Amino acid sequence: MAEATYDVLTIGNAIVDVLAHAEDDFLVQEGLVKGSMRLIDGEEADRLFDHMGTAQLISGGCAGNTAAGVASFGARAAFIGKIADDELGRFFRHDMNALGVAFPTAPVDDSTPTARSMILITPDGERTMNTSLSACQELTSDDIERQTVEGAAITYLEGYLWDPPKAKEAFRLAAKIAHGAGRKVAMTLSDSFCVDRFRDEFLELMRTGQLDLVFANRHEALALYQTSDFETALACMEEDVPMAAVTMSEEGSLILSGGQRIPVPPAKVERIVDLTGAGDLYAAGFMYGLAQGHALDACGRLGSLAAAEVISHIGARPLESLSQLASQAGLAA
Amino acid sequence: MAEATYDVLTIGNAIVDVLAHAEDDFLVQEGLVKGSMRLIDGEEADRLFDHMGTAQLISGGCAGNTAAGVASFGARAAFIGKIADDELGRFFRHDMNALGVAFPTAPVDDSTPTARSMILITPDGERTMNTSLSACQELTSDDIERQTVEGAAITYLEGYLWDPPKAKEAFRLAAKIAHGAGRKVAMTLSDSFCVDRFRDEFLELMRTGQLDLVFANRHEALALYQTSDFETALACMEEDVPMAAVTMSEEGSLILSGGQRIPVPPAKVERIVDLTGAGDLYAAGFMYGLAQGHALDACGRLGSLAAAEVISHIGARPLESLSQLASQAGLAA
Repeated sequence: MAEATYDVLTIGNAIVDVLAHAEDDFLVQEGLVKGSMRLIDGEEADRLFDHMGTAQLISGGCAGNTAAGVASFGARAAFIGKIADDELGRFFRHDMNALGVAFPTAPVDDSTPTARSMILITPDGERTMNTSLSACQELTSDDIERQTVEGAAITYLEGYLWDPPKAKEAFRLAAKIAHGAGRKVAMTLSDSFCVDRFRDEFLELMRTGQLDLVFANRHEALALYQTSDFETALACMEEDVPMAAVTMSEEGSLILSGGQRIPVPPAKVERIVDLTGAGDLYAAGFMYGLAQGHALDACGRLGSLAAAEVISHIGARPLESLSQLASQAGLAA
Repeated sequence: MAEATYDVLTIGNAIVDVLAHAEDDFLVQEGLVKGSMRLIDGEEADRLFDHMGTAQLISGGCAGNTAAGVASFGARAAFIGKIADDELGRFFRHDMNALGVAFPTAPVDDSTPTARSMILITPDGERTMNTSLSACQELTSDDIERQTVEGAAITYLEGYLWDPPKAKEAFRLAAKIAHGAGRKVAMTLSDSFCVDRFRDEFLELMRTGQLDLVFANRHEALALYQTSDFETALACMEEDVPMAAVTMSEEGSLILSGGQRIPVPPAKVERIVDLTGAGDLYAAGFMYGLAQGHALDACGRLGSLAAAEVISHIGARPLESLSQLASQAGLAA
């Protein structure tokens, strides 16, 4: 097997986050489920935008956030996702370039705009996402650059890729190419509503060996196996996939691997400001650790460290150098 | 005199800030003067953008920031400034609407984009601005809506309006309309380089009674009178304008009025993150206080309070309700 060109390639929806503070009352008034992600069309996006508070634009998208995190650790990252050649698309691409993340995907060639996610941050730091996929709808198998996938030690795919019509084929193709080149394939279940929409397909991916590593939070694990018993969900997951990392908010995370369960403590956070990106950055830290050959508990602690950084400020991309934070925490390569 | 419709109308360049962290070395490499604002064209803006780090987009522009601050105190604010009908322009307008700031100005009708300011934040919290004025170049006297100006208790103008070719006529017209309606006219000197560019005209505005209140920081006051002696600058300023508020960073501010000098302490800041908007928000708090009929020292303390909020986070618009902060500080109306 050739030496890898990239430590981690992530594939997902390329989204610019429109972040605004909102009171709980606003969510109730708009009929929104706190902590969820819902898909909306452009018209609803405009309507909601008109009603929400003053905003900040920050590049986002789960897989994009994860790639940014991997790069911030100093590792080699690549990203595949579909933007438009508009202001927000150029802004998204700029942020990838600025971090040194390879981003080979061509923009859409029609007038579909770059995807936006209107994210409402309530005073408890929880985020409620309203995503207009727009250009992300155009991601197809043609965007899966063989050379990039073959060169990545880990290819990481988001469950949200099941939403755009042709992206699941792209997902399957990427997994096939990666395995064909002897590489690892990881996936995040993305959110519990996403799991509800695509449970059977996600389980099939796991049970047919298309995935080596699955990231989930507690809600997603429970939703996947339609159980309220966490132990049952964990036991099923151990059956279905060689390795899983299950995050449990302030209780840290649990790594399931080869019949072992490795508990990982959370990293300290002085004040939770915005939970957007917590799971994405956990995955970044974990996969960075794997790529560096760290033991699994250290991988988990790198995940906790990255998640703690990102929830201490607004936006889903790290503001501090994760590489420096890892050094300070004695977790450097 | 009819009752005012607005407490404060601000007129200035409508700008979206592109904020990124940068090391001091980057400023040196780019030949930038820390803490300054320089004007750049679209090409240089694109080049600089390509070289700077990951960014956040937040509505800015000095006068826009001040209007946002006045609204955050719960007062009635209006803003006049020129945007384009593009993504950044809609974003800027959204933020004005979300705060309840009246914004009657029509966008440009050609393809000139909305103005951007690339702001580099160094580890000391200082900001270095690189502004591409674009659509702001199109502000003319036609944009000075008589009714809005006549209805504003205070019309606040930024010195930066001397940069776009036709905006100084708009500035003079607004001041004339305001005084014709028996209202007050305030101005900020904007920055010491701006003072260097337009010293004679600024002094003429002051000495011919076109201004009732001038905001300046220490550097701007020194630049205005081409002296290195602060006392000399203050004495000249007392001669030239009925009222002035001079900010002095961590030493607070000094209000000059009717031969009196009122010292105002700074408000406490736990950690300075980004100095962008400090002066703009001081002006917001001060004018909010004036509009509410507060004593001058209370006006100054409202200014300090607003400035302290905005420098404790990234971006030049308040994230917390200034109205609530004022209540907590015992400075409510």
